[in-house]
Amino acid sequence: MGNCSQGCKDYFSRQKNTNIRLTLPVVCFVWQIAMIILFGVFIRYDKESNAHWVETKAHDNITSDIENDFYFRYPSFQDVHVMIFVGFGFLMTFLKRYSFGAVGFNFLIASFGLQWALLMQGWFHSLDPQTGKIFIGIESLINADFCVAGCLIAYGAVLGKVSPVQLLVMTLFGVTLFAVEEYIILNLLHARDAGGSMVIHTFGGYYGLAISRVLYRPNLHQSKRMQGSVYHSDTFAMIGTLFLWMFWPSFNSAITDHGDGQHRAVINTYLGLASTVLTTVAISSLSQKTGKLDMVHIQNSTLAGGVALGTAAEFMISPYGALIVGFFCGIISTMGYIFISPFLEKTLKIQDTCGIHNLHAMPGVIGGIVGAITAAAASESVYGKQGLINTFDFTGDFKDRTVLTQGGYQAAGMCVSIVFGVVGGAIVGSILKLPIWGDPADENCFDDEMYWELPDEEEEHQESIPPILEYNNHMIHKQQDLSESNFSVEHCES
Amino acid sequence: MGNCSQGCKDYFSRQKNTNIRLTLPVVCFVWQIAMIILFGVFIRYDKESNAHWVETKAHDNITSDIENDFYFRYPSFQDVHVMIFVGFGFLMTFLKRYSFGAVGFNFLIASFGLQWALLMQGWFHSLDPQTGKIFIGIESLINADFCVAGCLIAYGAVLGKVSPVQLLVMTLFGVTLFAVEEYIILNLLHARDAGGSMVIHTFGGYYGLAISRVLYRPNLHQSKRMQGSVYHSDTFAMIGTLFLWMFWPSFNSAITDHGDGQHRAVINTYLGLASTVLTTVAISSLSQKTGKLDMVHIQNSTLAGGVALGTAAEFMISPYGALIVGFFCGIISTMGYIFISPFLEKTLKIQDTCGIHNLHAMPGVIGGIVGAITAAAASESVYGKQGLINTFDFTGDFKDRTVLTQGGYQAAGMCVSIVFGVVGGAIVGSILKLPIWGDPADENCFDDEMYWELPDEEEEHQESIPPILEYNNHMIHKQQDLSESNFSVEHCES
Amino acid sequence: MGNCSQGCKDYFSRQKNTNIRLTLPVVCFVWQIAMIILFGVFIRYDKESNAHWVETKAHDNITSDIENDFYFRYPSFQDVHVMIFVGFGFLMTFLKRYSFGAVGFNFLIASFGLQWALLMQGWFHSLDPQTGKIFIGIESLINADFCVAGCLIAYGAVLGKVSPVQLLVMTLFGVTLFAVEEYIILNLLHARDAGGSMVIHTFGGYYGLAISRVLYRPNLHQSKRMQGSVYHSDTFAMIGTLFLWMFWPSFNSAITDHGDGQHRAVINTYLGLASTVLTTVAISSLSQKTGKLDMVHIQNSTLAGGVALGTAAEFMISPYGALIVGFFCGIISTMGYIFISPFLEKTLKIQDTCGIHNLHAMPGVIGGIVGAITAAAASESVYGKQGLINTFDFTGDFKDRTVLTQGGYQAAGMCVSIVFGVVGGAIVGSILKLPIWGDPADENCFDDEMYWELPDEEEEHQESIPPILEYNNHMIHKQQDLSESNFSVEHCES
Repeated sequence: MGNCSQGCKDYFSRQKNTNIRLTLPVVCFVWQIAMIILFGVFIRYDKESNAHWVETKAHDNITSDIENDFYFRYPSFQDVHVMIFVGFGFLMTFLKRYSFGAVGFNFLIASFGLQWALLMQGWFHSLDPQTGKIFIGIESLINADFCVAGCLIAYGAVLGKVSPVQLLVMTLFGVTLFAVEEYIILNLLHARDAGGSMVIHTFGGYYGLAISRVLYRPNLHQSKRMQGSVYHSDTFAMIGTLFLWMFWPSFNSAITDHGDGQHRAVINTYLGLASTVLTTVAISSLSQKTGKLDMVHIQNSTLAGGVALGTAAEFMISPYGALIVGFFCGIISTMGYIFISPFLEKTLKIQDTCGIHNLHAMPGVIGGIVGAITAAAASESVYGKQGLINTFDFTGDFKDRTVLTQGGYQAAGMCVSIVFGVVGGAIVGSILKLPIWGDPADENCFDDEMYWELPDEEEEHQESIPPILEYNNHMIHKQQDLSESNFSVEHCES
Repeated sequence: MGNCSQGCKDYFSRQKNTNIRLTLPVVCFVWQIAMIILFGVFIRYDKESNAHWVETKAHDNITSDIENDFYFRYPSFQDVHVMIFVGFGFLMTFLKRYSFGAVGFNFLIASFGLQWALLMQGWFHSLDPQTGKIFIGIESLINADFCVAGCLIAYGAVLGKVSPVQLLVMTLFGVTLFAVEEYIILNLLHARDAGGSMVIHTFGGYYGLAISRVLYRPNLHQSKRMQGSVYHSDTFAMIGTLFLWMFWPSFNSAITDHGDGQHRAVINTYLGLASTVLTTVAISSLSQKTGKLDMVHIQNSTLAGGVALGTAAEFMISPYGALIVGFFCGIISTMGYIFISPFLEKTLKIQDTCGIHNLHAMPGVIGGIVGAITAAAASESVYGKQGLINTFDFTGDFKDRTVLTQGGYQAAGMCVSIVFGVVGGAIVGSILKLPIWGDPADENCFDDEMYWELPDEEEEHQESIPPILEYNNHMIHKQQDLSESNFSVEHCES
Repeated sequence: MGNCSQGCKDYFSRQKNTNIRLTLPVVCFVWQIAMIILFGVFIRYDKESNAHWVETKAHDNITSDIENDFYFRYPSFQDVHVMIFVGFGFLMTFLKRYSFGAVGFNFLIASFGLQWALLMQGWFHSLDPQTGKIFIGIESLINADFCVAGCLIAYGAVLGKVSPVQLLVMTLFGVTLFAVEEYIILNLLHARDAGGSMVIHTFGGYYGLAISRVLYRPNLHQSKRMQGSVYHSDTFAMIGTLFLWMFWPSFNSAITDHGDGQHRAVINTYLGLASTVLTTVAISSLSQKTGKLDMVHIQNSTLAGGVALGTAAEFMISPYGALIVGFFCGIISTMGYIFISPFLEKTLKIQDTCGIHNLHAMPGVIGGIVGAITAAAASESVYGKQGLINTFDFTGDFKDRTVLTQGGYQAAGMCVSIVFGVVGGAIVGSILKLPIWGDPADENCFDDEMYWELPDEEEEHQESIPPILEYNNHMIHKQQDLSESNFSVEHCES
């Protein structure tokens, strides 16, 4: 951008046009048709969702239908699904006039993203070399939802400042990058990351922050009046917060090992999150003159403990270990909202609408570090011989790996996720800067008016304003004409 | 009605009286007491929910409690339960002043309907000939919820225009008709319809539309000011939309076969719904001059893919097949809102408040057709020999049925559901037209004021109205004192 | 208090100070650190969540991971979790300006309470005598959530009248008392109470009412303007109601016996709740001149049937028995709101914000009585020989207990829960009366302003105020121009 001549500058700063009547339908149709074709070529039911299951059962000596992976994972899957659509969607409704965009665009990009994720993750993780097909089952659906989560995190950074077309582009590339970094971290480095501290949160966080940096709007203050919340929008946002918070144990345990793996991941996440709530409240209260609480902190920082346990939840971190992680994450995340976010905006020019740096990026990095330390400290006495092998999957090519080495690879994995987030986000941000995507002007940010047919609110007010006021309105005009009123400013604001 | 003399006409058009202080309590009490008596006579725990289970286990050589059907179906049941009460309830809160009626009456009729459904479905499907008892378990509860869904769909067509007593009557007959058509379709025709494209959505849709036709209100425009949404009511409605959307895979898989049946139904529904979202957004955007999105479409049409996969979700329709079904349903349903609903209202005099024709009736019919075609195209190579038998239940009397024949019976089933919906709705509509049910006058439709004690909003307004208005109030009193106004306090509260 | 001299009186009635910037952070930090230390000393994973599970499996001849208790209880656990955080939280959002406090403080005290509950319940119920450790698994998490429920019920009585610090103190003692009474009732008396009619609802109800009595505010009418609801806050509250209602079957079945025990508890609760809805509507309608419904009743009394089946849901009460219990609970609870609550406030000076007496205390007592009768009436012919032993756990020390004796102990258990609630609440109430906890003055009750940074609503109003008012603004300015005012529009919007 630096070498851009005047003409180029003009090109980028020309009058914004938010008409997306051509681009949005075209992108939706073309991409959806592409999905259908690619699914036709590549995607098939796996053996547990195939009508041949009855033969598989006989062949593998499985005695009961309940052994189908479906019954191990479906409840967790549905909880994750709720987190993706209601959790992320409603968490972002806090702005006074961007609830439609928050919930609606979240809905759109998640629906596209999960299809593309099934393909991308399939190609990288489970393409059958013989048939050239990808066989999907319940675990694939969970992984697709996880992949989408990374992109929704990134949405949080640019909430209110981009068009739905930009979001779709961001999701297309985000899912692609995700599948690659995930392949490197989980398959090549063989790091463990069941709840995605690194793969999902660190990547998603830095991806979004980098995009937001490239799309920096120096005049964003022009839409300052739209950047706050109102009472009811904050209450809506709490729906998102709570569903994320409650179902985070399912998130971190959804794809861990059957039996003790899922069981332990739930306990750790449950405890870590509880601990986070108390320290978030403490710091939030400390930050205000009279100890009042700030809804922004309660809505977001209370979740940091779940993010930070994304890697270690399946390990034997022990219950008090989970509490400690949650303890510090609540503090750090809330402090992030108070001190770091303003710094990022002023100094680094990163405008982070939802504060994903505090909720996902930082806690994600903490989670990666916690995971590396916990892995390096694992021992046969704590896990048992077979337990250690199962938990870290020390089989096949990795059967001779020591826990110390594993700790090193965990740390390496975290670096990969940061690099992919930052570099990927910078590149995708540049693409999104092209003036063809219908993004709003600075003064129209955070306003559903741009992309949604809004209900006519006049109607409501005529309903609910008591008749006397209408009468008043009438009278007051007369009155004003007549009298030398001593009306003063203070009345306006009292 | 045509032969109705002037006196009769007067009878029907006399002053509306929405006082339901007699009828509503009487109906609730009498019907609930009837339920208790009938349950006492007929309903018992089945062998899996009976304390004798320990003996059943020993007798049937069941090795583990986890083989109890409860563990196969309870997570899906709870998801369906959420769809019925939160999903349908909140989806209908979009009107600016009918949220109480939407959620509250939905709650009432579902609570009655599920009891009556347990009896009706029990008599038709599972009455034990020896004992004369109906034995219920978790699958019975799911089926009762399903049955209720049909009636809640019908509620969508008449939302805001009927009294709670009418809704209860509508539910009584709706459940009855449902049980009969379900018996014909599933038992006599032996059609498959696990997610109820035909049995639930087609029937429920046409039942509601027929009732709405009979109850046509030529002067409904008198309550036009109440027919829109406001910003927050649209956000509430998205809660309903999302819970329906997220849990639809559970809906379509709740009563399918253990193992691969449930697994596959989830995958298909998940994919179909994702596809629908993209095409809904595309058409919605196309329909507006500047490509803005319409909340009505996002709230409703995004769900059409789930409806249309109600029959075929358990079949080997294959992942791309599910995407294709969703693709077209998003288009057709959204177009329905744009073109067909106005046509239905103007030409056919069907006033369909929630657009159930676009969300349930049409996609239901599509689902029936898709099911028939998919069944007719089934083959042993795709399903496996035993898989084909299991999926279509080609056992007992039906063990020699071919897939082609099956396809024919599927199509026949769809016709049955349409006929039951239209004819049943017309008859029930006529009953509801009797002027004894306390329905609102045309100018009072879509207004919670009729059936709910509403909170006093003045209070709120004094909270939130800017001081200038209070100043106005102040002034006006002075004014009144001066000008001998005959304005009185009571006007404030009228 | 009675002997309190004038000086003491002054001490108690001095100017209220709601600054909690010191106390709240200190309590949160110190208690959370205490939790970490105590967890470090006492809490460990149980054998099903421990990495040694693979050895346990081999040792105990468990053939499949699905036999892990996790898979029997996790779906129910998550439903209970939703009830605790979304159910209780949103149910209390009905007040026009206390939604932040309702959801936020509920979140805070539940997060603390569940940690403390794991310790307290562990010490009393499952401390391993050899190792001195408490081993936790999924059932421990459910029990911790249950324990918290007792405290959240108590919160309902004092909603809007206490500070978050008081709530934390109330929770600390509430959980402690809960663990003791639970130990007496379930272990010493060997009463059955899977869904906690006695242990949770009766105790929690009377605990809250006793506290509210001690904290009686004679001048509470000073905040009368804040005590009502507004349209949207009532709609938010319905989210809480419905999630409680839908998931109550999971609540009552979460810790019942595997297999038929869980299955039956679900059926009974499902039916009882359905029945309650109809009688609640009937009585609510009867209570108003024109048969209108009252949202307070619909939000609360519809849940009474679930409370009252907390003890008997796992028994063979039979489906119609469940309907009968629900039938009467709907009537009694709704009548409670109409007749008993005003009486309690006027005569007994118990100010019960949410009406927990009608929703929890009374139905809880009914549930205890129903449980005692049902237990006493149990027979081998209905339960089967082994079924009776399993259901009432007639093993070990209790293997010779008869059902009649069991009935007696059930009744005794109920008395214990009442005594613990009343006496415990009175003592804790006295502690909370100390003027050091930052509670609000009478005129500031029910107002989030005291403890929350509230969004600036003016902004919003300029959005939504109808044009005529803007016109007023315009007029008034003209006026001001005339009177030499230097007031300008911008001031209004700063």
